[in-house]
Amino acid sequence: MKTVIVYSGGLDSTVLLYHMRAAGHELHALSIDYGQRHRCELERAAAICAQLNIPQPTANLSAIQPLLAGNSLTSPEIEVAEGHYTEETMKTTVVPNRNMIFLAVATGHALSIKAGQIAYAAHSGDHAIYPDCRNEFADAMATAIALADWEQVQLSRPFVNWTKADIVKRGAELAVPFAKTWSCYKGGKLHCGRCGTCIERREAFHLANVEDPTPYALRRRCTHRGKPEK
Amino acid sequence: MKTVIVYSGGLDSTVLLYHMRAAGHELHALSIDYGQRHRCELERAAAICAQLNIPQPTANLSAIQPLLAGNSLTSPEIEVAEGHYTEETMKTTVVPNRNMIFLAVATGHALSIKAGQIAYAAHSGDHAIYPDCRNEFADAMATAIALADWEQVQLSRPFVNWTKADIVKRGAELAVPFAKTWSCYKGGKLHCGRCGTCIERREAFHLANVEDPTPYALRRRCTHRGKPEK
Repeated sequence: MKTVIVYSGGLDSTVLLYHMRAAGHELHALSIDYGQRHRCELERAAAICAQLNIPQPTANLSAIQPLLAGNSLTSPEIEVAEGHYTEETMKTTVVPNRNMIFLAVATGHALSIKAGQIAYAAHSGDHAIYPDCRNEFADAMATAIALADWEQVQLSRPFVNWTKADIVKRGAELAVPFAKTWSCYKGGKLHCGRCGTCIERREAFHLANVEDPTPYALRRRCTHRGKPEK
Repeated sequence: MKTVIVYSGGLDSTVLLYHMRAAGHELHALSIDYGQRHRCELERAAAICAQLNIPQPTANLSAIQPLLAGNSLTSPEIEVAEGHYTEETMKTTVVPNRNMIFLAVATGHALSIKAGQIAYAAHSGDHAIYPDCRNEFADAMATAIALADWEQVQLSRPFVNWTKADIVKRGAELAVPFAKTWSCYKGGKLHCGRCGTCIERREAFHLANVEDPTPYALRRRCTHRGKPEK
């Protein structure tokens, strides 16, 4: 089915790209520039799509960044916290209503190009972290998306009950080039290895028993609790 | 309550602005530049908000217009049809998933400024025309919006069961400066008086038994069937 994937160039959405491609869908990978600090993910997304010969339109929403102010991903004055996520540190990384905005634009684009489906890579590991990755949120959005137009668009979220380790396992089966994906919220030259998203990435490889090919700026072994050893 | 209104500068949303203001809400009027042909509505929105001393942030989404191509409101090569809406002509005016995109951005902004409510002016006259003005759509969006964050944002849609004539009546009670609002999709110097939205505007004043102060380029009397007399 012709499908618009919300595609960041991160680990989860890259595995989703390979997963949906393996299922035979005709993919359009929609990337979103929302003024994120880690814009390098967009270059990773472009490179991976070019290699797979998948169209990769980019929605430039950076002009609305000031309206969504107050988070560390788009506000340079707010630091990205290090260490495993706590409720407080993860809240600082929330771009308000990011997933609804992305899904809304993806649905608009799907209607415009007559695609019957959109997909995003919400997964169960995100649930505690981001309310807009929960199953209930995805269900409500699926209902709204199906009602938004004369043409019905479906919302696919195949990983919504998977852990990040499950995603890494699936990615390994599909020979996803993990080293080319980008997770780190700091947006440096290498993954920092210490922010919440880097720690979760390292932990997922560890739990999946898959070798992590990511070059980290600070290479410390990650325990399954996600806390780097001293 | 601190409330973000999706505010176009049109008749419906201007009456909503006055209606919510009369109810004592602290308003932020979010206008959206989506590359619409009738950009003059944004100037009308700014002038009305300046007069009422209501903050009017504008979300510039014009960069994503090519992703939503194929409608007469944002594609200069597609003409705005004249005459009362038919199913076919109204479909040409649909910007795919416009309301979901607007509500998603409004929710993000509400979370950013700690507003507990967003509002939009969907009304029953729109239902046959635009799927994303229907009650079912608004209900699904209200559920998704309430689930999107740790903070709950409510979706207010007080006109969802009102006709456009009801809105004109309410506007008359509130002394809304109707002549300053903009409806016409053609974006000329005056309201054309002949496109679907102009005909609905004229019809609503007629049905509400309220004098229509709008200067139309082509002034023809409008019957209650909405068809201009020859």
